Amino acid sequence: MIVVMTPSATEQQLQHVIDLVEEYGLKSHVIKGTDRTVVAAVGDKRNVDKGAIENVEGVEKIVPILAPYKVASKEVKKDRSVIELAPNGPTIGTEKLAMIAGPCSVESREQILEVAPLLKEAGATALRGGAFKPRTSPYSFQGLGEEGLKILAEARDMTGLPIVTEVMTNSQVQMVSEYADVLQIGARNMQNYNLLEAVGKQPKPVLLKRGMSSTLEEFLLAAEYIINAGNPNVILCERGIRTFEEYCRNTQALSIVSAVKRVSHLPIVIDPTHGTGHAYMVEDMTLAAIAIGADGVIVEVHPDPEHALTDAAQQINPKEFKKLMERSARVATAVDKVL
Amino acid sequence: MIVVMTPSATEQQLQHVIDLVEEYGLKSHVIKGTDRTVVAAVGDKRNVDKGAIENVEGVEKIVPILAPYKVASKEVKKDRSVIELAPNGPTIGTEKLAMIAGPCSVESREQILEVAPLLKEAGATALRGGAFKPRTSPYSFQGLGEEGLKILAEARDMTGLPIVTEVMTNSQVQMVSEYADVLQIGARNMQNYNLLEAVGKQPKPVLLKRGMSSTLEEFLLAAEYIINAGNPNVILCERGIRTFEEYCRNTQALSIVSAVKRVSHLPIVIDPTHGTGHAYMVEDMTLAAIAIGADGVIVEVHPDPEHALTDAAQQINPKEFKKLMERSARVATAVDKVL
Amino acid sequence: MIVVMTPSATEQQLQHVIDLVEEYGLKSHVIKGTDRTVVAAVGDKRNVDKGAIENVEGVEKIVPILAPYKVASKEVKKDRSVIELAPNGPTIGTEKLAMIAGPCSVESREQILEVAPLLKEAGATALRGGAFKPRTSPYSFQGLGEEGLKILAEARDMTGLPIVTEVMTNSQVQMVSEYADVLQIGARNMQNYNLLEAVGKQPKPVLLKRGMSSTLEEFLLAAEYIINAGNPNVILCERGIRTFEEYCRNTQALSIVSAVKRVSHLPIVIDPTHGTGHAYMVEDMTLAAIAIGADGVIVEVHPDPEHALTDAAQQINPKEFKKLMERSARVATAVDKVL
Amino acid sequence: MIVVMTPSATEQQLQHVIDLVEEYGLKSHVIKGTDRTVVAAVGDKRNVDKGAIENVEGVEKIVPILAPYKVASKEVKKDRSVIELAPNGPTIGTEKLAMIAGPCSVESREQILEVAPLLKEAGATALRGGAFKPRTSPYSFQGLGEEGLKILAEARDMTGLPIVTEVMTNSQVQMVSEYADVLQIGARNMQNYNLLEAVGKQPKPVLLKRGMSSTLEEFLLAAEYIINAGNPNVILCERGIRTFEEYCRNTQALSIVSAVKRVSHLPIVIDPTHGTGHAYMVEDMTLAAIAIGADGVIVEVHPDPEHALTDAAQQINPKEFKKLMERSARVATAVDKVL
Repeated sequence: MIVVMTPSATEQQLQHVIDLVEEYGLKSHVIKGTDRTVVAAVGDKRNVDKGAIENVEGVEKIVPILAPYKVASKEVKKDRSVIELAPNGPTIGTEKLAMIAGPCSVESREQILEVAPLLKEAGATALRGGAFKPRTSPYSFQGLGEEGLKILAEARDMTGLPIVTEVMTNSQVQMVSEYADVLQIGARNMQNYNLLEAVGKQPKPVLLKRGMSSTLEEFLLAAEYIINAGNPNVILCERGIRTFEEYCRNTQALSIVSAVKRVSHLPIVIDPTHGTGHAYMVEDMTLAAIAIGADGVIVEVHPDPEHALTDAAQQINPKEFKKLMERSARVATAVDKVL
Repeated sequence: MIVVMTPSATEQQLQHVIDLVEEYGLKSHVIKGTDRTVVAAVGDKRNVDKGAIENVEGVEKIVPILAPYKVASKEVKKDRSVIELAPNGPTIGTEKLAMIAGPCSVESREQILEVAPLLKEAGATALRGGAFKPRTSPYSFQGLGEEGLKILAEARDMTGLPIVTEVMTNSQVQMVSEYADVLQIGARNMQNYNLLEAVGKQPKPVLLKRGMSSTLEEFLLAAEYIINAGNPNVILCERGIRTFEEYCRNTQALSIVSAVKRVSHLPIVIDPTHGTGHAYMVEDMTLAAIAIGADGVIVEVHPDPEHALTDAAQQINPKEFKKLMERSARVATAVDKVL
Repeated sequence: MIVVMTPSATEQQLQHVIDLVEEYGLKSHVIKGTDRTVVAAVGDKRNVDKGAIENVEGVEKIVPILAPYKVASKEVKKDRSVIELAPNGPTIGTEKLAMIAGPCSVESREQILEVAPLLKEAGATALRGGAFKPRTSPYSFQGLGEEGLKILAEARDMTGLPIVTEVMTNSQVQMVSEYADVLQIGARNMQNYNLLEAVGKQPKPVLLKRGMSSTLEEFLLAAEYIINAGNPNVILCERGIRTFEEYCRNTQALSIVSAVKRVSHLPIVIDPTHGTGHAYMVEDMTLAAIAIGADGVIVEVHPDPEHALTDAAQQINPKEFKKLMERSARVATAVDKVL
Repeated sequence: MIVVMTPSATEQQLQHVIDLVEEYGLKSHVIKGTDRTVVAAVGDKRNVDKGAIENVEGVEKIVPILAPYKVASKEVKKDRSVIELAPNGPTIGTEKLAMIAGPCSVESREQILEVAPLLKEAGATALRGGAFKPRTSPYSFQGLGEEGLKILAEARDMTGLPIVTEVMTNSQVQMVSEYADVLQIGARNMQNYNLLEAVGKQPKPVLLKRGMSSTLEEFLLAAEYIINAGNPNVILCERGIRTFEEYCRNTQALSIVSAVKRVSHLPIVIDPTHGTGHAYMVEDMTLAAIAIGADGVIVEVHPDPEHALTDAAQQINPKEFKKLMERSARVATAVDKVL
């Protein structure tokens, strides 16, 4: 890190900073510039709280140099990670895109068994559906729980599609891990560190959604919690960030795909459903996600969106999904990918 | 809710909307305006997913009328809630302000037993300190756990100050509830619904921090989860929101105090430490919080900020806290409050 | 608009609202719901300040129903506008994309005459370059002024490419309009209403950049100022919005393309250079812009980015632009467009 | 500035960076750390585009060290500036607060001559009112122009209150400067550099509103444009920033007061009217502004808010202003200020 002193900092204050830097086990290099002096602190500073110096008299600011994540970074692993969505099943992270689709919530056996074969037929890679539902309001539908997981497993038996489903709390991890192929961590839980550690200790891949106001650094540190706990199979998912915009529920921050590819080896998918919040925007955003280089998408598809119990405004129907897949295939080809 | 039709909506599309509204158990009123038709849907719509209509052809948008929260709202309880921080202990929600102070983390027995009496002497109402720490990085200090809770309890025995401390996951709730007087839910867990329900089922008051990108509605719905689970004693805490600003770690959104007083009966405190992120801003922001009408503040105070293991840049020292309390007392008087 | 009364509103307060609504020349419909009463005010309310009622006792909030823009909206003009970038020159708004490219600033005659033929050869539709530069710092290069316009005109003579260049203030409008083919209004001037009116009174098309925190409504109202002043040829340009993200200079809000197509007839282009702020992201974002359905892009290309006087971090070089065009052509085909 | 190299940067890439740094007239210091090499570039870099190096191969990022503003900074002028609102009139920047009040728009002679004496009597320091109005919609009331300026001048003759009024475009500067005591630059024009230069060349003080998404650095650079053009009398005004919050029109970012006092000598006032957007929040926010240390406030007061032509939802009436002043006086005393 770089410690920038104020123009009026005294020699004594400078010496105090140097002492603190060395107390932390770092080496200090002092550079006297025309306007102010800076102290470059060299060494692995990840376990030092940089703020400890910011508060010192004579210090103007601290500038970190190293990113705080390690195992999620490209520096540690140069090749991009390829992750199996199910044992010997489809992978993510190659030129073949992962097209994950399914309803927001598992509402009934009929609903899932109706929609799953249609998704399969349209070319989906995996089936998503929520059995445990994080709902902003306690008065909303909260999901079918284990019953929902059984329905998803039945749909997998029927179609062969791997199952992606959300786990909300530590006590559900074992159960969800038994039924599902990929465990999803929702945006609201991206910094639920106990949950991150719990999914890091089970064997299935984890689809980690970006928190709605998380930075790239926080996002990769959340992945780092999972990897550190023992599970290297983390799939990042950008699902829109919160901004001032009002014509979409969230602002889909597509450029994170380019940034992730530059600094990390983890695959990344886009969720155009939450990323826009409006069914009419989903198809076009899917095409953009593919064009920019995402490793796949996760899209909500409901057999009857008008009667969906959750996320009704943003789910598309199977017919719309079919068209989305056809157009996606063309764009994929144009960027040397396949569905 | 109000359903706004597009200008080109057909009679058939309008009728379909009316049918859906009535299928949901609501009554519909159609109003034909000069530019477009709207359908007002009357009745308690809280358990209907408004999106279900937004997706329908001929619909331009849906406008909700009712707030989705109930028991946290002033409509249900007109008087402002007064909550005891400990049985027969200090209260929050009256003209007497709650001045909660203490280090970010419990680092050692010495640290806490040194700082607690100084805080007591300066006039603090309660002692804060983290035994379980949600850390952005897995490489940072993660807290002392139960050992930390014991140290806090010892400080309470010594000073009489009630203890406010964070609980991060469901499995910690019982233990933390045994040691602490007030359970804190951190910003990153504001929408950890399972945790909200768990603290709703134990008897101690809950200090609920606002998520860093949560709206007022989401904040009150999180409180609603706790109240609905059986615990009416929820203290709201604004701790800064995430914006584009770069001279502060977060943007302290003080106007939420005025908004909360208008729509809810729950007390609200301000956290100027996280709300600004810089030690030098804490005192002035505390004064502003009192002036705008907050029911108290929660401030990080460390005996030696330069060597703090966490949040070093934003903690003030006991001497600075003493000055903060003296100035706060004067501003409190000016707005007819007392410390 | 809809006026929502508080639950405790009196009959007298309700009557006062009805009186105000009618005083404004609107008709009122009162709907008594289970929880509260709403007053629907019917009629063209565009010239009424809706706030006038929000402030009245007994009123909880006002909900607008009509969008405030008219001539920029699809309701007034159903077909999408097709605009000529130069008389009998290339158009924008059809299946043929407008690929506008050129350096951030006109720095010298040599620079422009070197880069323009390379852009032409790579397939660019028009040449951009700034002669008047809005710079955040007064110490930065401020542009060559009229000399820069002459250089651009010379490049047009050489290549046939229409010129797009920024106008910053009313006194420059006439001069810029004489040299340029398309006048650009920068993001910082999106709500400089006097300037909008001035470019609305000259005959050349206007490329209007979205303000960095403007909503879609404000963006279209800015276009409305230009159209109302007499110039219907407005090209919208999304250039990134300001959010908390730190890995890109701005957050490119691509979903506005879908939104604009739904509510307006105006063409829209994407500026991936400012929308991302990093040269390495420009190509991928361009592909995404085409995939999502934009009518074109405007990209900064400099013959020697390392020595660019402005925007050095985000300009690509001619060779990179050539590759960008080749990849763009493939994606364009995949979405039934051509370069 | 500090140039951070990627871990895989070659010696040749490092040398190229050193060459560029020296080409810019800066001295380079190379520091080889455990994970990567950084190049510290020493010297006055204000006129170099730092991006020029960011784009170079082998470079990870550039970290600026010096703030880009000079004459607005405390380094150049240590004492806080005290500015006369009128020759021999009230000043701003001392312990005496500037309480600027008046309607959003000058609507009529009657309106202004009714409200001005009431404001004077309640203790206002200056009278505000808009004659030229920047309106989001072209269909809204656009102000009375010079007629409005004459009415304001008449109110000054009647009450002795200095006049603060907005100037929107260069051609109005001379006229407004003749009538007004303080020229206001609106938030939407904060980066209208030509206008900044124009008000920098006339003699009256300038009240510069913060752009709704501007950083502190951009805000001070805008002030710098005015000061550089010859006018040192710049009063900063925070008027709320744009965030995701929905219960207030803007988020009042009060901590900028503490930040400005740390880095600049310029006085700063708070605009609680636009900063909150709701009349009911204005009084409490005013108290907070005084408590945090602002040099004054600028508040919209209308004799009949229900019939205001602009900003009706957020203006308070003279009786409410009287109460605001009484409460403000008490808080001012508590922080050693006076009204």
